Amino acid sequence: MSGNNIYGNTPTFLGAKNISADKNTEGLDVSVYGVPWEGAVTWGDYTGCELAPKVIRLVSARYTGYLPEIDHLDVFEHLKLGDMGDIDIVPADVEETMNRIEKFASQVWDSGTFAVALGGDHGITFPIVKALAQKVDGEVGIIHLDTHYDNKPNFDGDKFARCSPFARLYEQEGVRNEAIVHAGIHGPRNHPDNGRLANSVGATTITIRDIRKNGDLQAMAKQMHDIASKNTDAVYLSICSDVMDYAFNPGGPADGNGLSSYELLELVYEICKLGVAGMDFVEIYPQSDPNKFSAHIASTIVLYALAGVIHHRQNANTGEKEYVKN
Amino acid sequence: MSGNNIYGNTPTFLGAKNISADKNTEGLDVSVYGVPWEGAVTWGDYTGCELAPKVIRLVSARYTGYLPEIDHLDVFEHLKLGDMGDIDIVPADVEETMNRIEKFASQVWDSGTFAVALGGDHGITFPIVKALAQKVDGEVGIIHLDTHYDNKPNFDGDKFARCSPFARLYEQEGVRNEAIVHAGIHGPRNHPDNGRLANSVGATTITIRDIRKNGDLQAMAKQMHDIASKNTDAVYLSICSDVMDYAFNPGGPADGNGLSSYELLELVYEICKLGVAGMDFVEIYPQSDPNKFSAHIASTIVLYALAGVIHHRQNANTGEKEYVKN
Amino acid sequence: MSGNNIYGNTPTFLGAKNISADKNTEGLDVSVYGVPWEGAVTWGDYTGCELAPKVIRLVSARYTGYLPEIDHLDVFEHLKLGDMGDIDIVPADVEETMNRIEKFASQVWDSGTFAVALGGDHGITFPIVKALAQKVDGEVGIIHLDTHYDNKPNFDGDKFARCSPFARLYEQEGVRNEAIVHAGIHGPRNHPDNGRLANSVGATTITIRDIRKNGDLQAMAKQMHDIASKNTDAVYLSICSDVMDYAFNPGGPADGNGLSSYELLELVYEICKLGVAGMDFVEIYPQSDPNKFSAHIASTIVLYALAGVIHHRQNANTGEKEYVKN
Amino acid sequence: MSGNNIYGNTPTFLGAKNISADKNTEGLDVSVYGVPWEGAVTWGDYTGCELAPKVIRLVSARYTGYLPEIDHLDVFEHLKLGDMGDIDIVPADVEETMNRIEKFASQVWDSGTFAVALGGDHGITFPIVKALAQKVDGEVGIIHLDTHYDNKPNFDGDKFARCSPFARLYEQEGVRNEAIVHAGIHGPRNHPDNGRLANSVGATTITIRDIRKNGDLQAMAKQMHDIASKNTDAVYLSICSDVMDYAFNPGGPADGNGLSSYELLELVYEICKLGVAGMDFVEIYPQSDPNKFSAHIASTIVLYALAGVIHHRQNANTGEKEYVKN
Amino acid sequence: MSGNNIYGNTPTFLGAKNISADKNTEGLDVSVYGVPWEGAVTWGDYTGCELAPKVIRLVSARYTGYLPEIDHLDVFEHLKLGDMGDIDIVPADVEETMNRIEKFASQVWDSGTFAVALGGDHGITFPIVKALAQKVDGEVGIIHLDTHYDNKPNFDGDKFARCSPFARLYEQEGVRNEAIVHAGIHGPRNHPDNGRLANSVGATTITIRDIRKNGDLQAMAKQMHDIASKNTDAVYLSICSDVMDYAFNPGGPADGNGLSSYELLELVYEICKLGVAGMDFVEIYPQSDPNKFSAHIASTIVLYALAGVIHHRQNANTGEKEYVKN
Amino acid sequence: MSGNNIYGNTPTFLGAKNISADKNTEGLDVSVYGVPWEGAVTWGDYTGCELAPKVIRLVSARYTGYLPEIDHLDVFEHLKLGDMGDIDIVPADVEETMNRIEKFASQVWDSGTFAVALGGDHGITFPIVKALAQKVDGEVGIIHLDTHYDNKPNFDGDKFARCSPFARLYEQEGVRNEAIVHAGIHGPRNHPDNGRLANSVGATTITIRDIRKNGDLQAMAKQMHDIASKNTDAVYLSICSDVMDYAFNPGGPADGNGLSSYELLELVYEICKLGVAGMDFVEIYPQSDPNKFSAHIASTIVLYALAGVIHHRQNANTGEKEYVKN
Repeated sequence: MSGNNIYGNTPTFLGAKNISADKNTEGLDVSVYGVPWEGAVTWGDYTGCELAPKVIRLVSARYTGYLPEIDHLDVFEHLKLGDMGDIDIVPADVEETMNRIEKFASQVWDSGTFAVALGGDHGITFPIVKALAQKVDGEVGIIHLDTHYDNKPNFDGDKFARCSPFARLYEQEGVRNEAIVHAGIHGPRNHPDNGRLANSVGATTITIRDIRKNGDLQAMAKQMHDIASKNTDAVYLSICSDVMDYAFNPGGPADGNGLSSYELLELVYEICKLGVAGMDFVEIYPQSDPNKFSAHIASTIVLYALAGVIHHRQNANTGEKEYVKN
Repeated sequence: MSGNNIYGNTPTFLGAKNISADKNTEGLDVSVYGVPWEGAVTWGDYTGCELAPKVIRLVSARYTGYLPEIDHLDVFEHLKLGDMGDIDIVPADVEETMNRIEKFASQVWDSGTFAVALGGDHGITFPIVKALAQKVDGEVGIIHLDTHYDNKPNFDGDKFARCSPFARLYEQEGVRNEAIVHAGIHGPRNHPDNGRLANSVGATTITIRDIRKNGDLQAMAKQMHDIASKNTDAVYLSICSDVMDYAFNPGGPADGNGLSSYELLELVYEICKLGVAGMDFVEIYPQSDPNKFSAHIASTIVLYALAGVIHHRQNANTGEKEYVKN
Repeated sequence: MSGNNIYGNTPTFLGAKNISADKNTEGLDVSVYGVPWEGAVTWGDYTGCELAPKVIRLVSARYTGYLPEIDHLDVFEHLKLGDMGDIDIVPADVEETMNRIEKFASQVWDSGTFAVALGGDHGITFPIVKALAQKVDGEVGIIHLDTHYDNKPNFDGDKFARCSPFARLYEQEGVRNEAIVHAGIHGPRNHPDNGRLANSVGATTITIRDIRKNGDLQAMAKQMHDIASKNTDAVYLSICSDVMDYAFNPGGPADGNGLSSYELLELVYEICKLGVAGMDFVEIYPQSDPNKFSAHIASTIVLYALAGVIHHRQNANTGEKEYVKN
Repeated sequence: MSGNNIYGNTPTFLGAKNISADKNTEGLDVSVYGVPWEGAVTWGDYTGCELAPKVIRLVSARYTGYLPEIDHLDVFEHLKLGDMGDIDIVPADVEETMNRIEKFASQVWDSGTFAVALGGDHGITFPIVKALAQKVDGEVGIIHLDTHYDNKPNFDGDKFARCSPFARLYEQEGVRNEAIVHAGIHGPRNHPDNGRLANSVGATTITIRDIRKNGDLQAMAKQMHDIASKNTDAVYLSICSDVMDYAFNPGGPADGNGLSSYELLELVYEICKLGVAGMDFVEIYPQSDPNKFSAHIASTIVLYALAGVIHHRQNANTGEKEYVKN
Repeated sequence: MSGNNIYGNTPTFLGAKNISADKNTEGLDVSVYGVPWEGAVTWGDYTGCELAPKVIRLVSARYTGYLPEIDHLDVFEHLKLGDMGDIDIVPADVEETMNRIEKFASQVWDSGTFAVALGGDHGITFPIVKALAQKVDGEVGIIHLDTHYDNKPNFDGDKFARCSPFARLYEQEGVRNEAIVHAGIHGPRNHPDNGRLANSVGATTITIRDIRKNGDLQAMAKQMHDIASKNTDAVYLSICSDVMDYAFNPGGPADGNGLSSYELLELVYEICKLGVAGMDFVEIYPQSDPNKFSAHIASTIVLYALAGVIHHRQNANTGEKEYVKN
Repeated sequence: MSGNNIYGNTPTFLGAKNISADKNTEGLDVSVYGVPWEGAVTWGDYTGCELAPKVIRLVSARYTGYLPEIDHLDVFEHLKLGDMGDIDIVPADVEETMNRIEKFASQVWDSGTFAVALGGDHGITFPIVKALAQKVDGEVGIIHLDTHYDNKPNFDGDKFARCSPFARLYEQEGVRNEAIVHAGIHGPRNHPDNGRLANSVGATTITIRDIRKNGDLQAMAKQMHDIASKNTDAVYLSICSDVMDYAFNPGGPADGNGLSSYELLELVYEICKLGVAGMDFVEIYPQSDPNKFSAHIASTIVLYALAGVIHHRQNANTGEKEYVKN
């Protein structure tokens, strides 16, 4: 394996330190790991989001940590990143895979670094947050940016399908349902039962129209974080690519009327400025995106999140809340 | 033919009742029909919009009638849909095809249902509105959302070309030219003669810049409907896919500087809230859109229109105006 | 409609005389017509072979009638072609469509011209041959070049599906089952029942390996025609694109181990030299073939058939047998 | 060569007068020329922007000069265009190519027409502006709309790479660095050194967030032009396609969080209303854009610029400043 | 998980019994398993052959076990298949992955079933054959159908790269180098060192020209098997997709001058008729093959191998040699 | 410019010595140069063969000079290659471009190296062979492998169009028409006039069927070379990509019934074994070939030609005939 490649000709994400062998996060601030998992397929014959961790890393080689538009911030001057590699999922064994993700995530949370998971399908969010919930003293709140509720009780019997993680999280001890915010929700790919269930467990829905009618992205981010951080000890951020309109996310699900890349980036930055323990970005399908635009924007989304983390560290002394340590 | 399929492996639009055999609309509120017609090709070697009714139906299987962002409205709780199948166009006979469309549309208008036509090229709008004009007591107004005027007197002698329906409608008895609104118009694919002709017959032009400079989509919808409903007994809504920017409409004509999917959806919803008799959505070319995004958004556009219809029914007792009954 | 176009920007096939309006074949030798029909879809979510008649015509504009490799024959010096346009199929009504095809074909057979049908799916062969069987004095034999038997009794209840025409033809009065040759058959897309049924009705199977092991294409053509012409009064040639390997037929079904374009052309030429009443070429899907190679080769296949027709006319005085006249 | 084609089947840009043979601009207001150059490739294995001048011309045949949304302005009523053809670049000789571009541009500037260069990669801007700087009495200011600074001192030793033209322009006599505005800058494809260098030479950076937070595109255009025209005698406008978001620019670099086509068009129009000597539009890669959307919008961008030119001519008598004459 | 799916919406290969949970092969004749591994990338930026096991299974749903061209053999009448699922590879850990493959393969060989591995890149062949070599009493011979030798000592230090398995196998105890046949070898993607190394260890090279000049595929198969079975106790068959010409293998490496699908199928059938213990089929990249032709032919290749196995069982009583049992 | 790149990120062809700056062929045996020219477009809206020299070089980086199937010959052990870069064509000036090609080719011929031109369209063959004809003492013969005659007197007035080089060569002093062999000719893209003209000037036509019916590729090559070398002092080899079937040439014109890659390679090798002065390979369109198969095979075609050259040098002492020296 040549140089810093994480595997094959694939470099580490954004040139992070390669810690795939020993998972040693000493001296690092951020841990990135891939979850090349695709479980239930809920629409169409094929998707292929297990390729996303690889393709996101490949295209990340195009980028530095510099964001001229955010006061010329160079993220890498402030944060050291490590790339932990990918979880060894078992294609034909959903439960074993969920266990492995949980176990892997548990180690990541122990490291006290800001944890970034690259999906894979949305099913990965449940074991990741479950692991977090077992680490924090109190409860966990979740800001969930998505077109869909992803809270279907099960898909054809599969409880860990991509459309179901929030059904599992609603049931998970240590997750505070009143601190779950489904934001960006819209469109008829949802089912009336999804909205009813979210409502019944006490979760908050903020639709795309709520965001658009309000118009102030910073205020919307604040509103989301206020709910997610109320009476919780950690806030987790889970982003499904399709919260962006297909125009900005050609390698994701076919949902229109979504956020622009600008809108998503602003929300992510503002949310993370307020304190977040970790995040995931899921559901991109490189096969249906010849120019890999969705994989490219993933790097920027993570950098905007990290810009928020830097800002939060500088302005607050509340590391306890969003960072998990043993 | 298995189950509810309208043909082949193609389901009915949004799971509507299959009434393709008997066209029986009893108990139904909305009629959907396809017009797999492509006549004159005015740019490039190929388009293929005759495939749109099939592909729109195929991808509509992904959707319910639930719009969480519009007060969690479930359209199907309020309206029953029927799918009438497709008109049997005659590829090499434009005039016969126009007659068949008119005759078919005439039956649909008789049903008193809200009529949704899925094109096909824009040439289909003329016979559909002609049929409507022959049904209403007074005159018909038209809100025409499009990048282009589509009022070219003829294309190489063809009077029913996709660029010509409004030239025919201007001449049509029962259509009130002063109640025609060409909205969203922009860009150099238009010809100076188009604007002059619209102006000379008394039609109103609202360009994309008018909409953008105003910024209030609800107000713009109101302005359009006010013009179209003034001194008329029915308002028809005709939408060419290219009123959306190519970013949001990769399976349509190559016109930039257009509406976003959000902007179009808001306009459609607000217009239909004010009372509309029926609509069409035309000019999508599945062949040039590998991910079928344009076909996907069609389902949402129709649902937003129906959300408007529900709202209108609830708030008004003016069924006479926008619904046509014998 | 400009010039000689059959519709839109689509020229007539190979520049044939446009007789779509009056169907007048006086003075013509060959009639071409399109059948833009796609019924049951038996694999995958989409196909789109209803586009084939249009795309085949579009690309046919690239060609003359000159075949330097066949003794510098110029087909158009010997035969006059007419393009009859397309049949007005009814997308949501299989039976009505079959009736219309039969009726249209019946008129074509009456003309006494060599009839070339461009599909469409393979379901169109049944009504075309049924019409032929009703015209000839005796019985009809069929040379069927295909990877698949296409004799499944029905598909999900649909008796006219693309996989079923030979099941219908086996039952058809006037078709002599012992004069049906399924040639080129191979591969596991077939089902054991298909082979058993063909055998039980007395049809002959010639597999791809039979052709390859023999190696003499002219001899194989002779063998096919001997069977098809024995005790019959007309021989029909039906070609499914997938008798060619996907390498040569990227716009057709995904069947490997098939004929090369060279092999198919030689077979078609040699078969037609022996006397054939008409033919069809079916099952190409322009959408899955960006370079339209399958549509391009269609023109050459028809020209090779016509080269055979010319040769047959020159060498035989048996017009009665392969040409149908009132 | 048939008719007005500039070469092959490629028409002149927007139907301009073909002056490729004699370069005679007499009676013309605007000169268009192509620079089919691709030098250093800074990301990925392939780009192909040397095809852009051809493809932009090909798709320009779809357009008139009519912009209904700008007061129904017909650009061609006011301005006469000439197409000068393409510069004969030398693929394997960067320096000779730069010399040829400079020499060609010098002749164009001499003509006193508004000069429009169609790239090619961004490396072409240096010799074009160098030629301009040698013509004007005083100094030149530049409005540079781009995602990236493109001021890297060199790329692997190549001083004329696409990422380097502004490094050269900073050094160029006759270019006033304090009158260079890098506008639209954003994202981690930039390097911290880029921002520092721009700052150190006195150039102004206006990021995408500055534009978005301000919200008034006309005001932003004014701000850019004020800087670029202060103490200068000519203002040049250089547009890299990637200042648009990939959603609106699928045939350009993979940069999200950019301008919409609407935003770019408004900026270009407003900037040119204030007086500009010439412009370029660079970095589109037709190969990665099957529908050629990026090439299509190029025509509109140029027309918006010309609409600004018309407005400027009408409202000002300052031709000296933005037009260069001997 | 619904029905017989192996994961997601992916069925078992050719409808095999799903034994992914318990790996219980009792009563089965054939075991199929996937190895979704892509290690070193030796050309280009991306490949994606880790998707092949999934896509091969997905498209296998189109097929039965019936091969009309091989005496109407129905493979499934003779052999019962089980699908064991996929190996849980570790993307960033080559050595651990190789160990897991070896361990998994070892269990498969213990089952005494005919073992079919679906790659993945060619690196998987080494641990599979290593496991076999540890099971058989004597030595193993290998028929290696490929364009390339794949015997490079290492790739940038990686000893298990796709270009290196035969370098490892040359060193492996229990593999008889004189019984290794590299067949189908051709073209300049090979390096002179590759041929020299093969020669020096005693392996036999049969180039594509040797096969073509001979012309008798059955004789060539016999020649290969004679070498591979001489003084060995088991013969393994390893097929790289690129032994087929890109025309027949659009989803594989870009190597022309290769076998046709027909030629490969005949070789595989004739080889397996002579007795083979197991096989793999590697190196297809679904991403670069929109119609998935390479994945489709994989099903037929395996069925031809199984047809050979049936024939061998019927004609020989030498089960000891090619089947491995504890 | 880094390392040995000929331009941008494009390496020299097959790693040849970079002599683009000084054109110094001292010590070299073979000269390669690109002609990025596309003139008249004779079918369809676009082709893009001016990209071929770049893309052929890019993919050539995958290859060595080793051909295991030709007695393990390593071409680079015997011949030293130089890459001269590309000719600086003038897009909008056909005549000037033809002059530049002729002048450049003239220098190449002076070098006495085996000259390989990479097109570009077929129009480039005329000036290249004209330059050769002016160098040789006697006359030049041409083996022209193509589907088409390319001898149309002019295309819409353009005498140097891609369909016309042989019309020019027929008229060219120093070219012996009786020594021109049009080989591989087939299909209806030709016009009867083409065949008649070839015949009338004394050129020989060998159609694809002549080749297939004969079956002995070596004998066919001999037959071609015998004609081309009779009474001539140099034989030139011009290959249009479309002499290969579209299956093997997806990046070329849409002509079926052509040679396989194997057949073309054998012909090229056998022809060059008999003595050839230089060659060209033209008409590949990278844009329509996502996997660049046609560009990949170009490397192998040139290597087979060079293998022939080596064999010729070794077995003959007739360097005078096929090599041109001052």
